[in-house]
Amino acid sequence: MPSKRIVAVGGSDAGISAALRAHELDPGSEVTVVVADAYPNFSICGIPYYISGEVGHWSNLAHRTLADLKATGMEVRTDTLATGIDVTGKRLAVRNADGRVEELPYDALIVGTGAVSARPPIEGLTGPDALGPQDGVHLLHSMGDTFEVMQTLGERRPGSAVVIGAGHIGLEMAEALITRGIQVTQIEALPEVLPTVDPELGALVHAELDAHGVEVIIGTQVSAITRDPSGQVLHVRATGPTGKTFTRGADLVLVVVGVRPDTTLAATAGAKLGVKGAIEVDEYMRTSLPDVYAAGDCVVTHHRLLGRTWLPLGTTAHKQGRIAGENALGGRRWFAGSLGTQVVKVFDLVAARTGLRDHEARAADRDWAPATTASRPDDHKAYYPGTTPISIRVTGDTSSGLLLGAQLVGRRGAEISKRVDTYATAIFHSMAVDDISELDLSYIPPLGSPWDAVQVAAQAWMTEHHLHVQRRMLGAS
Amino acid sequence: MPSKRIVAVGGSDAGISAALRAHELDPGSEVTVVVADAYPNFSICGIPYYISGEVGHWSNLAHRTLADLKATGMEVRTDTLATGIDVTGKRLAVRNADGRVEELPYDALIVGTGAVSARPPIEGLTGPDALGPQDGVHLLHSMGDTFEVMQTLGERRPGSAVVIGAGHIGLEMAEALITRGIQVTQIEALPEVLPTVDPELGALVHAELDAHGVEVIIGTQVSAITRDPSGQVLHVRATGPTGKTFTRGADLVLVVVGVRPDTTLAATAGAKLGVKGAIEVDEYMRTSLPDVYAAGDCVVTHHRLLGRTWLPLGTTAHKQGRIAGENALGGRRWFAGSLGTQVVKVFDLVAARTGLRDHEARAADRDWAPATTASRPDDHKAYYPGTTPISIRVTGDTSSGLLLGAQLVGRRGAEISKRVDTYATAIFHSMAVDDISELDLSYIPPLGSPWDAVQVAAQAWMTEHHLHVQRRMLGAS
Repeated sequence: MPSKRIVAVGGSDAGISAALRAHELDPGSEVTVVVADAYPNFSICGIPYYISGEVGHWSNLAHRTLADLKATGMEVRTDTLATGIDVTGKRLAVRNADGRVEELPYDALIVGTGAVSARPPIEGLTGPDALGPQDGVHLLHSMGDTFEVMQTLGERRPGSAVVIGAGHIGLEMAEALITRGIQVTQIEALPEVLPTVDPELGALVHAELDAHGVEVIIGTQVSAITRDPSGQVLHVRATGPTGKTFTRGADLVLVVVGVRPDTTLAATAGAKLGVKGAIEVDEYMRTSLPDVYAAGDCVVTHHRLLGRTWLPLGTTAHKQGRIAGENALGGRRWFAGSLGTQVVKVFDLVAARTGLRDHEARAADRDWAPATTASRPDDHKAYYPGTTPISIRVTGDTSSGLLLGAQLVGRRGAEISKRVDTYATAIFHSMAVDDISELDLSYIPPLGSPWDAVQVAAQAWMTEHHLHVQRRMLGAS
Repeated sequence: MPSKRIVAVGGSDAGISAALRAHELDPGSEVTVVVADAYPNFSICGIPYYISGEVGHWSNLAHRTLADLKATGMEVRTDTLATGIDVTGKRLAVRNADGRVEELPYDALIVGTGAVSARPPIEGLTGPDALGPQDGVHLLHSMGDTFEVMQTLGERRPGSAVVIGAGHIGLEMAEALITRGIQVTQIEALPEVLPTVDPELGALVHAELDAHGVEVIIGTQVSAITRDPSGQVLHVRATGPTGKTFTRGADLVLVVVGVRPDTTLAATAGAKLGVKGAIEVDEYMRTSLPDVYAAGDCVVTHHRLLGRTWLPLGTTAHKQGRIAGENALGGRRWFAGSLGTQVVKVFDLVAARTGLRDHEARAADRDWAPATTASRPDDHKAYYPGTTPISIRVTGDTSSGLLLGAQLVGRRGAEISKRVDTYATAIFHSMAVDDISELDLSYIPPLGSPWDAVQVAAQAWMTEHHLHVQRRMLGAS
């Protein structure tokens, strides 16, 4: 069998994972990766730690260097923009750094164009006179964005910043700027920070921000960013929950309110789009176009509980890319689906979630009667020094007993991020909340309890919602 | 339905869990716990941390105080020895502290008599003149043993100790004695310390002991302990792997070479015994005697991969006790089985395992072709400060691809104990090694990687054992 020509578009998680997997499975295949910028295989999740100064040099953010990638035998074309797909002719048109246009023939194409920053409809952010990096107003998603932020930090030496948005990147950037000694005001439109978890847990993160000197303003919509004509100071105008409008001055404004899928290449070629405008793919990561696969932040995500949704996560991009790479070679691997497992560190606090929250489960087209129980078990036996509580919210279906989701917030060191993995693995296997107590988890007093915190929280859910059923079953009084 | 009289024998994990569960499910039931000593519901896993001084007062080792237990409404009879079971009359004979004999009627009896220290056939440890606590020679399993050790520490002020055995308790006690400023020699009969993991990982624990000044002697059998007639010094005679015999002097000798099931009560009443002489029980925790349940270290354990075995663990005792308590009331809950998941902290190192190792899987009566792959992924992204490698050994069946076991050793803080839980949950659900990559695990650069260490290790197993199969399947060159 002749070796296949595999072309992957995108130098981030999905594209590189696809290329690496194809090359690993068939070193004889011709694998080419087309990368729009000069930074293939960079960890964009690491950007806040570079900006904070914890990562010494930007090049350390590369999962693998360009040399590493090339050493595998694959071709990596940096500064090369994919401009069009000739689906019938099976050719990808690209424009090189020098403006030269070229067509790359492929047997299978993998589109991993990712996501781009959402630009909210804020006055001063849109239109021909929109403020930008040169004014100290930044979006932040790519390495290019990162260098622009670093330039502002170096040249303007800002003493104050407004961070618009308090999701994962917003929170990490608030911490990063505080770490650099910059005063931070964080403005979130929703009623609490970290809106991906229940507000009871978001409030714990809020308190952590408070404790580290971040001015947190919630339930507040930013309407305009203006530049002081006299100097460098920027003004952010916003309206609070009571309708009162106010203004904050700052030397730097960071707009991190989310991303949207970058689908231009695939859509122009006629690929079907789905939820939130993301590229429609089946479980084999095939688009509607023949021999064109897609993976990562640009595609619709299969969620194990919700069905089709859009949920951009680096972990998912790695998995989907790997599968696309395998299938592009002729494999038949299936994407098992996402649970939206995610974690964020905010100063000394860690917040994680997997599966669904109450309202998400209620919105799903399923016969669920979801309910959530809060508990606060210790991370390890209280008699051993250093015990710290973990705030856990377990969501289950009160009709079937099915575990639907879990959210955890606790101190760093309380092994939050690996405890959420136990729930994620349990949900992956459709476990009942009650059966979590059957799991044979590890225990030693300095690191756990005979019933681990994840089991204590599951038992709390049972006590709140199901115990009466069992007692009736037993015929007890 | 009249309320049931439930009697549980044993104040440790199994007995108390059974009693608490019965009482929780039917507060109208009459629940009595018969406890041989004065220390119900103590965490014997915590003893080393009390002896080290990290736990300030022994009473802190109680999971619940006697007052807590009584406040639930159950009766707790301390210093009360269960001496016999009248199976036909459904009565438990007990001898109270004052020597008075009494018979307690029951509808269901739960035997949770636990385990007792093994006393190896070492000269000086057996016979009428056996050395004991008054000589500074100690076994260590109960609170009574603990107080005797503390008395020796207080009165003899030992400068040196020999710890015989390098399993979990032996290792924790070596650390505890070092923490108290005592010189420690640790002697292990097997070729490496922590024989519950592969010697490649035991060697890492060995190095940690070395680094903290423990003299570690492996492959060495202790033959005799003698007391210097002139004073307090003890002499431990041992024979090393080359057959050379030597003697170590010490002020304190600790013999911690394991435990055996305490089955006298049940066996005398005619209960069938099984593996290693433990009490035979079915998956409902029923013994061969009518209305007599048993749970914990005294019973045969159902292992999800091995079938019937004996594997005393506190976590298992809690689970089995809870089930016995529920079934004693008329429930029909099933013990889902153990995977032998366990973890130990030795100074700054954590070692954990779940499932089977190569030789254990080979010894099982199954069609497995087990193989183990070693890898050493980082705990989190290398660019974020504080990265530390985790030594992982994944065991799988090369014929079916089934995940059989995992062993992990790494620094405290590398979330070893919760990472082993992900493997334990995966094995619980009979996952294939390859499918570990499908799990949606959490990721953030300070705490993990896009493919978590547990997935990287699984992928390493696939690469070593299975990749060629896939490549053939794909028709690759």
